[in-house]
Amino acid sequence: MMQNDKTVMLLHSIYSPADLRKLPLEELPRVCDELRTCLVQELSQNPGHFASSLGVVEITVALHYVFDTPNDRIVWDVGHQAYAHKMLTGRREQFGTNRKLGGLHPFPSPTESEYDTFTCGHASNSISAALGMAVADRICQNKRKVVAVIGDGSMTGGLAFEGLNNASGTANDMLIILNDNNMSIDRSVGGMKHYLHHLHTGSTYNNLRYRASQRLMQWGWINEDRRKQIISFNNAMKALLNNQQNIFEGMNIRYFGPADGHDVIELVRTLRSIKDMHGPKLLHLHTRKGKGYDPAEKQPTVFHAPGKFDPETGERIVSNEDNLPPRYQDVFGHTILELARKNDRIVGITPAMPTGCSLNIMMQEMPHRAFDVGIAEGHAVTFAGGLASEGMIPFCNIYSAFAQRAYDNIIHDVAIERLNVVFCFDRAGLVGEDGATHHGAFDMAALRPIPHLTICSPMDEHELRHMMYTAQLPNQGPFVIRYPRGRAEHADWQCPMQALTVGKGRKLKEGANVALLSIGPLGNTAQKAIQKAEEQAKTEGRELTVAHYDMRFLKPIDTDILKEVGQQFHRIVTLEDGAKNGGLGTAVIEYMMENGYHPQVTRLGLPDEFVEHGTVPQLQQIVGIDEEAIKEELLRK
Amino acid sequence: MMQNDKTVMLLHSIYSPADLRKLPLEELPRVCDELRTCLVQELSQNPGHFASSLGVVEITVALHYVFDTPNDRIVWDVGHQAYAHKMLTGRREQFGTNRKLGGLHPFPSPTESEYDTFTCGHASNSISAALGMAVADRICQNKRKVVAVIGDGSMTGGLAFEGLNNASGTANDMLIILNDNNMSIDRSVGGMKHYLHHLHTGSTYNNLRYRASQRLMQWGWINEDRRKQIISFNNAMKALLNNQQNIFEGMNIRYFGPADGHDVIELVRTLRSIKDMHGPKLLHLHTRKGKGYDPAEKQPTVFHAPGKFDPETGERIVSNEDNLPPRYQDVFGHTILELARKNDRIVGITPAMPTGCSLNIMMQEMPHRAFDVGIAEGHAVTFAGGLASEGMIPFCNIYSAFAQRAYDNIIHDVAIERLNVVFCFDRAGLVGEDGATHHGAFDMAALRPIPHLTICSPMDEHELRHMMYTAQLPNQGPFVIRYPRGRAEHADWQCPMQALTVGKGRKLKEGANVALLSIGPLGNTAQKAIQKAEEQAKTEGRELTVAHYDMRFLKPIDTDILKEVGQQFHRIVTLEDGAKNGGLGTAVIEYMMENGYHPQVTRLGLPDEFVEHGTVPQLQQIVGIDEEAIKEELLRK
Repeated sequence: MMQNDKTVMLLHSIYSPADLRKLPLEELPRVCDELRTCLVQELSQNPGHFASSLGVVEITVALHYVFDTPNDRIVWDVGHQAYAHKMLTGRREQFGTNRKLGGLHPFPSPTESEYDTFTCGHASNSISAALGMAVADRICQNKRKVVAVIGDGSMTGGLAFEGLNNASGTANDMLIILNDNNMSIDRSVGGMKHYLHHLHTGSTYNNLRYRASQRLMQWGWINEDRRKQIISFNNAMKALLNNQQNIFEGMNIRYFGPADGHDVIELVRTLRSIKDMHGPKLLHLHTRKGKGYDPAEKQPTVFHAPGKFDPETGERIVSNEDNLPPRYQDVFGHTILELARKNDRIVGITPAMPTGCSLNIMMQEMPHRAFDVGIAEGHAVTFAGGLASEGMIPFCNIYSAFAQRAYDNIIHDVAIERLNVVFCFDRAGLVGEDGATHHGAFDMAALRPIPHLTICSPMDEHELRHMMYTAQLPNQGPFVIRYPRGRAEHADWQCPMQALTVGKGRKLKEGANVALLSIGPLGNTAQKAIQKAEEQAKTEGRELTVAHYDMRFLKPIDTDILKEVGQQFHRIVTLEDGAKNGGLGTAVIEYMMENGYHPQVTRLGLPDEFVEHGTVPQLQQIVGIDEEAIKEELLRK
Repeated sequence: MMQNDKTVMLLHSIYSPADLRKLPLEELPRVCDELRTCLVQELSQNPGHFASSLGVVEITVALHYVFDTPNDRIVWDVGHQAYAHKMLTGRREQFGTNRKLGGLHPFPSPTESEYDTFTCGHASNSISAALGMAVADRICQNKRKVVAVIGDGSMTGGLAFEGLNNASGTANDMLIILNDNNMSIDRSVGGMKHYLHHLHTGSTYNNLRYRASQRLMQWGWINEDRRKQIISFNNAMKALLNNQQNIFEGMNIRYFGPADGHDVIELVRTLRSIKDMHGPKLLHLHTRKGKGYDPAEKQPTVFHAPGKFDPETGERIVSNEDNLPPRYQDVFGHTILELARKNDRIVGITPAMPTGCSLNIMMQEMPHRAFDVGIAEGHAVTFAGGLASEGMIPFCNIYSAFAQRAYDNIIHDVAIERLNVVFCFDRAGLVGEDGATHHGAFDMAALRPIPHLTICSPMDEHELRHMMYTAQLPNQGPFVIRYPRGRAEHADWQCPMQALTVGKGRKLKEGANVALLSIGPLGNTAQKAIQKAEEQAKTEGRELTVAHYDMRFLKPIDTDILKEVGQQFHRIVTLEDGAKNGGLGTAVIEYMMENGYHPQVTRLGLPDEFVEHGTVPQLQQIVGIDEEAIKEELLRK
């Protein structure tokens, strides 16, 4: 379709950045326009991350125009801003396959393109990675340049600070582009937000700068030697005028800006003037998330990942969802508010995902008891530990894959003292199109060895509510509840809540031949598979009845069930939406082995490899945890 | 002893901070002197962390004098600076039990004292935890104060930055004391170090401040309204004078200082003047690590944890170690240098432990290829990923317990792209006196589920050298080598290095009745236990021969050995210095179950509880992995 579209004529001639660099400077605004047109056309049909990429079109074009990619290295921080980058680096024609099974990766991926330099699914890693590249170049005496492009949201992550701190103290010539759109996904948070907001120059500044430096020279406050450090001095002046200090200069990283991140001509000029400077430097650009597409500029959070929409009107194409079950995240969001109304010790914490985890529901009614701490998973957990040490009951909601960042905080700042923190790990298990970096694969296996933790997963939203209710009862200690992305099971989710017995599962169905032990919502898939397997066995004249247990708790695991199963069954199938090495299946095997039972145990779960992107059903089929795979396993002789 | 010592007369009357607060202000210097005397006496006999605590004596006394502890909360960042705090809070007389089995905890511990507010074994968590407490107080309308005491070394950790960023954006009145001794354990690193070093005022400053504000008023640059923000303004002036910016003011955290952290009278005055101020604030104090004890001031790194020493002369009491085997860390340190001389792709990375992990050996000879990145484990790993993406082979050495902080970085920034990073995890397994926060218990269990990783552990230093050699061969992907604290096995450690076959173990001894599968140096203990068990069985007239396999690799695990063992033995004992749920024993069980073998498998390893402090032999006995326990298990009928 796009090949014949006159509105993207220039792009047709650009198969790589080398083609882009053949264009005269004045054509670049048109390239940017065409990229926007292309992004709107593609993303309106094939859903993905949208507003972030619109915001960095000019930055992307300017970088590839000025720098000698792929020899020079661009490291994108969080790859959902990198669609224009993909289009300019030979992947425009395949862009329709973006995020689809076997298609382009959701984020830049070094396995996909030489222009993609580093894995970038999790925020804040670009500076550290780019510093590694810059230092490698220095050691190997390569002449290439390294650029990290990081958003203001990612800048709140501790890893970015560690990177900055080291960029300052290690010999390197890297350039950091700070893409400041005053948002992460929802909004930026904390001192950094406040700081960046004030880091701009009024018109007074340019008028007074020269006069001021003259006067200070007269006073002897600055001398000729110091005057050479005129950039630092200018920034100090700006700081003085704004009663505000420059963090980056404070860390000895040369600061340029702020400048307009949407003026591609000026951007090229600026980049050309600073690219060969020695030492670490930061260029601060103001951009607008969703830039150039009116509906996205007005609602950047909605258009972060809007799904399909009408490219003309921006109207989102939403199917009627009235009778569908709610999403797990919304059950969490409504339930924590319901609990917090009754228990004034409850507070909510999210690292930068108020919309994504639906804590925004509580934030609206109880702004002083719900905290968005920014992209800072480690802090989220330690902050929760501090709150719990004073008797509060924090619900700390983190996407499972991002909670990997808080592994030590969970151990050191919560588990050791057995503090009452409730961890709600959303997006646990396969998440689909976001791919390898985003699947919540490792939480159960990594957390099971940690003493003092209770770990559970609900089979449906009623169970989720019961687990949340149970977790906030007195003296429960650290309590992990993991649940997946997407919709739950029942349209009527608002059941009364009840206390579950910690460490006890439930038998859903009797059976004689095989015991199926599941944890989490896959139990629903298992129910269907069991029914089909039993029916098929019947038609084949075989006797097959399957007992089904919903384990509910990974830890402490229900040893009554395990004993019953060990005594009564020769065949056990375990099922979990997580790494099978170390998770539920492993826990079952450990029990059987240690207690002298010798059933045949088949573990269904995520394999010992990184699972790529695709729809959840496609991926479930590939790894063998879909209905068909479970049925086949049950029917296996 | 101390009770009758005239030099510590005042301390005899102080059983709690309430007693301290009864003293007149002018007595406080004497209290500080006495505390130092006490610390020197105690620590010279009963080894522990020393120089850090000497440096914060005045801060400790001033805090307990001004604040209403334990109602007011003091959160120590890294508890090895908190010995004076322990002595002032009712634990002076038990101080001789410090770090000993059943005695005082090595770091403040809320289970030990109401004056200890939070777990503080790992650096950089104090601001986040204190913020949680401050926010809890606000919600519950408690009137207490919260103070975090953090060193400049800890300030390089990303978690501290995340805490600062949120302290700035969340309503709270907390006070952060920045104890700036220009060192972490070895030395501070990066931009923060540079920054803090310049953050002081020359004498010009005080003279010019008033005049400057007058002139700027004349120019209309500051008005009456702005003048109220005089502290911010003053700091901006300082920044201007120093061509240096104030990071904390930039983040909207009110900054006071720098001041002398050893002038206890002035400290009390300052704390009194700022303690009731609203909003987050930071007091920057310069201190000297080892202050007041000459040998420690001169060699603060040596006296960080000096072992026993002569209190009069400062001479360290070192036994003759000439014929002892080297420490594993030194074998690492010498071997990486040896490898790096031959392979110019090799670089070394340590997060703030150059002395502790012996990377300082390489840093001396190859300063441009060995990097101390400060307390920043996440950055250390992502930085290594960046280096590896350009073809370097980084050896990233992290203490096992601290590597928990880089769990996501290992997955996201190294494992997914199968980058050639060699992780050397020192202090793996039980570490002894540093206790629960420092045991490297979880590395094997947490890392085993991660795809693409190779994980191994050497039985002795020769194996360590072979593993390091193997890991730097081309295309090995991410390679984890874990080894313990303490001494290796052989005095002649300098064997020629050879390539091991990845994923292959070795049979050390034939046997008929039991197979013992070990990983790591515990294999040496196992060898002795096996010999004793076989001898004892003989004297009892029983037939017992034990086959011993050193597995070498946890992942990929040697399935040839497992098959052989599965086929030939009814009894298997596995042995590892790590959490037994999820580690080697579990991997063995998984294999046996999946391949239809039904031996009886006993797993010896660390239990599902946090192990406290004591000597390594004491702790090994408690958890049942010492020679006696292994022997008993082998003899069990």
